[in-house]
Amino acid sequence: MMDLNLIGKSSKIAAMELAKLSTKVKNFVLVKSAQDLIRNSQKILDINKKDVEEAIKNKVKDAFIDRLTLTEARIESMANGLIQVASLNDPVGEYIFTKTLPNGLIVGQKRVPLGVIAIIFESRPNVTVDAFGLCLKSGNASILRGGKEAINTNKTIVEILRTSLSENKLNPDIVQIITDTSHETADKLLKLNKYIDVLIPRGGANLINNVIENSTIPCIQTGLGNCHIYIDESGDLNKAVDIIINAKTQRPGVCNSVEKLLIHEKIASKFLPIIGNALREKNVEIRGDKEVLKYVKDAKLATEIDWHTEYEDYIIGIKVLKDLDEAINHINEYGTKHSEAIITENYTNSQKFLNEIDAAAVYVNASTRFTDGEQFGFGAEIGISTQKLHARGPMGLKELTSTKYIIYGNGQIRE
Amino acid sequence: MMDLNLIGKSSKIAAMELAKLSTKVKNFVLVKSAQDLIRNSQKILDINKKDVEEAIKNKVKDAFIDRLTLTEARIESMANGLIQVASLNDPVGEYIFTKTLPNGLIVGQKRVPLGVIAIIFESRPNVTVDAFGLCLKSGNASILRGGKEAINTNKTIVEILRTSLSENKLNPDIVQIITDTSHETADKLLKLNKYIDVLIPRGGANLINNVIENSTIPCIQTGLGNCHIYIDESGDLNKAVDIIINAKTQRPGVCNSVEKLLIHEKIASKFLPIIGNALREKNVEIRGDKEVLKYVKDAKLATEIDWHTEYEDYIIGIKVLKDLDEAINHINEYGTKHSEAIITENYTNSQKFLNEIDAAAVYVNASTRFTDGEQFGFGAEIGISTQKLHARGPMGLKELTSTKYIIYGNGQIRE
Repeated sequence: MMDLNLIGKSSKIAAMELAKLSTKVKNFVLVKSAQDLIRNSQKILDINKKDVEEAIKNKVKDAFIDRLTLTEARIESMANGLIQVASLNDPVGEYIFTKTLPNGLIVGQKRVPLGVIAIIFESRPNVTVDAFGLCLKSGNASILRGGKEAINTNKTIVEILRTSLSENKLNPDIVQIITDTSHETADKLLKLNKYIDVLIPRGGANLINNVIENSTIPCIQTGLGNCHIYIDESGDLNKAVDIIINAKTQRPGVCNSVEKLLIHEKIASKFLPIIGNALREKNVEIRGDKEVLKYVKDAKLATEIDWHTEYEDYIIGIKVLKDLDEAINHINEYGTKHSEAIITENYTNSQKFLNEIDAAAVYVNASTRFTDGEQFGFGAEIGISTQKLHARGPMGLKELTSTKYIIYGNGQIRE
Repeated sequence: MMDLNLIGKSSKIAAMELAKLSTKVKNFVLVKSAQDLIRNSQKILDINKKDVEEAIKNKVKDAFIDRLTLTEARIESMANGLIQVASLNDPVGEYIFTKTLPNGLIVGQKRVPLGVIAIIFESRPNVTVDAFGLCLKSGNASILRGGKEAINTNKTIVEILRTSLSENKLNPDIVQIITDTSHETADKLLKLNKYIDVLIPRGGANLINNVIENSTIPCIQTGLGNCHIYIDESGDLNKAVDIIINAKTQRPGVCNSVEKLLIHEKIASKFLPIIGNALREKNVEIRGDKEVLKYVKDAKLATEIDWHTEYEDYIIGIKVLKDLDEAINHINEYGTKHSEAIITENYTNSQKFLNEIDAAAVYVNASTRFTDGEQFGFGAEIGISTQKLHARGPMGLKELTSTKYIIYGNGQIRE
C-alpha cells in the first residue's frame, strides 16, 4: 500500500513553495507543460491504447470507452487547456478589500491558495491535466486519484507533468497521483485532513455519497445533475421543443443535460404529442406518468425511482402537474440542486420560479446545458458544485482560493 | 429521544418561508424579539439561577460559571445585539455580478440564504440569541444545541423567541432547540445532512474534532486559537510588552488571546527579564524552554504538549528561536491557523511573516485580540472560522449566505 502520509506531507511542502510563486512563473510552467504533453503525445497514446484494450476486454459501456480513449486531437485539446489557463487572471494576491479602522489598524482581506486539493474522479484522463492546470494557477498542490481503468494513462500524464516541473526548477510534488487503486487506500485518503485542505469528488452518486459519509476533509460536491425543465401553461411551445431537444440530446452524458420534463396539465394534450414526436426522432426513450401515456403511445410507465434518477443517456422522464407550485415542490424534492429551467411567457411565474427553486443555476426560457464555467465566461472549470458552502455552480480559479486577513499595526492594543 | 427528522423537516420548511421574507419584515421581528427578551428578563433570570446552582453543585470551574451566569445587564446586551443585527445590511438578494453573454443570456450571481444552519455550542446562553438573530437576518433557519449546563436557560430563551415569531405571524420553527442532551442524539444530529445545510461547532478541541470525524454535514470549524506572537530581533520592545500583556491578559478565556511567545535568540537575554516581570505582575504562569528558564527564574519547563495547548487561562508558553524562518515553521506546525503576530521594525521580515504564515489573521505590531467581527467592522459575528473553505476569520452575515445563478433567456440553446 502507498504511504499516503508521505504523499500528504510532501504535497503540503510543495503547496507552501507554490504559494510563493509569481503569476509569471506559474504561466511559464503551464505553457512549458503543455508543450511537453504535445511532445510526448505518442507515448501517451501508446499507453492509453493498453488501458482501452483492457477496458474493452472487461466489457465496459461504449460511452465509457469513448471517454477513456485519447486521440492526437484530444491531447492537443488538453494542452490547449493549459495554455488557456495560463491566459486567465490569477486570483491569488487579489485584495477583496482594504480599510483603515478608527484605531489606525489597516485590515485587508487577501485571496490565498487553499493549499492541497485532492480530486477523486472517474475515467476521463483529461481531468488529470485540467485539475493540474487549474490547481497550479490558483497556487494549490494537487493529489489526483483517477479511476482504475485509466490508471496507466493518468500515471504517464502525471510523470510528464512532474518532469516538466522539475526541469523548470519547481517541486514536482506540486502534482501527485495515487496509483494504488485499492479501496483501503481510497478510504485512507478520505481521512487525510491533516494534509489535505479540500477534497473534490467528481463522479457518480455512489462516489459522492461515499465521500460525504466517510471523509474528514472539507468537501465540495460536484456534478450530480437530475435537471428538470418545467413547461408552464403560458410557455412558448416552439421554444420549448428546441430547448428540450437541445438540453436532452446535445450531449446526454453530462451533468447539465435535462433528465425530466414537468408539464402543466392545461397544455398536456397539446404539447405531449409534439414533444413525444420530437424526442422519438432523436431516439429518446420516454418514461411518463399515466397522463403522459395517454398522449405518447410508446412511452413506458415511470416509477418512483425514475423521478430520482440521473440517466445520463437518451432517456427522459415526463410528468404532468397541476401548476407551478406543484412543479417547484417536485423539483425541490427530487432535484440534485444543479440546473433547473422554466419555459414561460408569464412574468410573475418566471420570478417565482427563479426565487423559489433551490439550485445552483435557475433558468427562464433557455437550455440547462449552459451551466458551465466556459459558457459563463470563467474560462475553465474544475467542476460544478451542487452544494451551498464555499462555491455553488461552475467553479473557476477564484473558487479554488481562500482568503486571509492581513493587519498592519503600529502598536495597537484592544481596550 | 427526540425525533430529529421531524425537527430537520420542519426547519427546512421554515427556511423556505424565511427565504421569501423582506428585509423590512425580518428587521421588525428582530426588534420585537429583543423587546420580548427584555419583557421576560425575570423569567430568564429565575431559570438561569437554577442552571447556575446546579453547575455550582457539580463543581465546575469559576470561569465557566461566569460564562453561564446571566444578569439584567447581560440580557439587555443580548437584546441590544438583536437590534444591532436589525440595523446591519441584509446580504440576501445582493447581486455579486450580472452580465450579458454573447448569445444574449443574462447571467446574474445572487446571494441567497444557506438554508438550515445547525450550531453546536458550549455553555454561553448569549450564543442562543446571537445565533438566532444572525441566522434570521441572513434568511436561515437555525437548529441550536447548547451545552447541558445551560439547557434550561436556553430552552426558556428559545421559547420566548418562538412565541415572538408566532405572534408576528411567522413560522416559529425558524428557530428550534435540541433539548435532549444525550450523546446518541448529538451523533444523530451530525448525520442529518438531508435537512441541515451547514453545521457550525463552537467550542473546545474535543467538540470540534468529534464533529469533523463524524459529521456528514458540511462544517465550518470555529474558535480554536493557539495564537503566537513572534518578537523579531528588530522588534520595538516597549510595543512588544504592551501588545503581549494586552493579548494575554485583556481576556484570557477567548480564542484570539495569545498563548505562545516566540523570541529571537539575539534579544532573548534583554527581553526575557522584562516580559517575565510584566507577566508576573499580571499573575501569568510562564512555561518556557531551557533558554527561557535561564532568564525567568520562576518559569516552569515547557513540554511538547505545551506547544500544542490553547490554555485559555493566565498561562503562557515561551520559546527562544534562531530566526524568523524557525518562527514561521513553528507557527505553521503548532498553530491552529487563527491569529498570529510579529513584532518587528524590519520591513522585509514583516512582509515575509504576512506571506508565509498560514492563518486566518496575520498581524504586524498589533494585538491578536482584534480578530473579531465587531472590531473588523462587520457588526457582529457567529464565530471565527479557522478553516479555509467558505469563510476564514470572523464570520458576519455575508458568510451565512450562499449564491445562486439566475439566468434570463429568450430561447437560447447550446451550439
